[in-house]
Amino acid sequence: MNTAELAATIDHTILKAEAMPADVDQIVAEAMEHGFASVCVNGIFAAGVVHQLADKAKNPKGVKACAVAGFPLGAMKPTMQAIEATGLAKDGVDEIDFVAHLPHLIDKDLPMAKAEYTELVKAARSVNPKIIIKVIVESAALMNGVSEAEAEARIALACQAVRESGCDFIKTSTGFHPAGGASVQAVTLMKKHGQGIKVKASGGIRSYDDAMKMLDAGADRLGCSAGIAIVSGAKAASDGY
Amino acid sequence: MNTAELAATIDHTILKAEAMPADVDQIVAEAMEHGFASVCVNGIFAAGVVHQLADKAKNPKGVKACAVAGFPLGAMKPTMQAIEATGLAKDGVDEIDFVAHLPHLIDKDLPMAKAEYTELVKAARSVNPKIIIKVIVESAALMNGVSEAEAEARIALACQAVRESGCDFIKTSTGFHPAGGASVQAVTLMKKHGQGIKVKASGGIRSYDDAMKMLDAGADRLGCSAGIAIVSGAKAASDGY
Repeated sequence: MNTAELAATIDHTILKAEAMPADVDQIVAEAMEHGFASVCVNGIFAAGVVHQLADKAKNPKGVKACAVAGFPLGAMKPTMQAIEATGLAKDGVDEIDFVAHLPHLIDKDLPMAKAEYTELVKAARSVNPKIIIKVIVESAALMNGVSEAEAEARIALACQAVRESGCDFIKTSTGFHPAGGASVQAVTLMKKHGQGIKVKASGGIRSYDDAMKMLDAGADRLGCSAGIAIVSGAKAASDGY
Repeated sequence: MNTAELAATIDHTILKAEAMPADVDQIVAEAMEHGFASVCVNGIFAAGVVHQLADKAKNPKGVKACAVAGFPLGAMKPTMQAIEATGLAKDGVDEIDFVAHLPHLIDKDLPMAKAEYTELVKAARSVNPKIIIKVIVESAALMNGVSEAEAEARIALACQAVRESGCDFIKTSTGFHPAGGASVQAVTLMKKHGQGIKVKASGGIRSYDDAMKMLDAGADRLGCSAGIAIVSGAKAASDGY
């Protein structure tokens, strides 16, 4: 995988509460320079990022606009989260990463999980039928402290709910949960049970080595704020350092 | 201050992503038993908590229902956060704690901060004119790494925006930010510059001693998940242990 191919897997991400408009502008500029898959921001910045990325002369590689909904707790009312997603779709984002309500997955309640995701995806696609929807399931919180069998059952159920509700990606982590971020184990289970949905690994991916581990485990997309360090590592590796 | 008076200052709080319905039920039961000021939950639980607290036979002390909006990043679109608050008001909550967009406060941009808070408070009060609104300003993130003068200027501006937009409380912290939670310094500055608004200290208040420090600094309300430990400490103290 060369540097451009690696960059094209990365959602260049800035989600911290104190991110300033200038910080977001920098992320957008970096994404257009390196050809990252998308710029991923909080909703307040979504319309501005869409506007900047719409300049095809400055964005020849077609970097997408991505925003989060129900982030990072997944504990808004599902209807409100769907309204938030609809607003983001109206703002013109190409992709939405929303946080699943964890109790539905901890309870392995497939009907409730599917109802939650379906409401959001239908609402967002009523505005943009092609919008990409990623469901963040906070895999470390689901998997820590339970048996391997229970962890796998939870991830399998999450995959089923994501797939059957018509969402595009299952995503490991918000990067904000104290239980931790992406793991090779989580990505491997998501690939095993995904059956057609894609996998985004996110949370704690800080280096070229971290990124390659996730891609080797089968991740289709990476979410990270360290995209520049990661592609610089890629450059160094291919330069023989 | 006796145990009942201490309990009446506490918003008994459960906001973690993996909080299960049974965990919330327990918090509600504890709040009604001890006479806490309110039960503070994520939006998905708001209507259920309102329903449980409406039973006056079980809730003779009149514990209030409180829910959060734009939580914990304060980085949704302000309009969407106002819509979320309006939904919570329709669900019947008595109080809403929402997160201020930090860049407005870091920039000391009074018009933007006031516009954000005013939009939300007007929307929520269109449903319930008496609803109590608390503005979480993530004081540790505002105050860390800057001069004392700058920290005070930011808190003073936040107080002004909260007051002039007609909100009721300034609140220190979400409890989720890596910069930390409430501090005596933050509460003291909020009392100094509040000029009529109340102060809620929250984040990292885990013991009777923590609680008393915040109350001694002038806090009118405390937000904590350790309410039982705190009032047990109060009991122990008044029992001479």
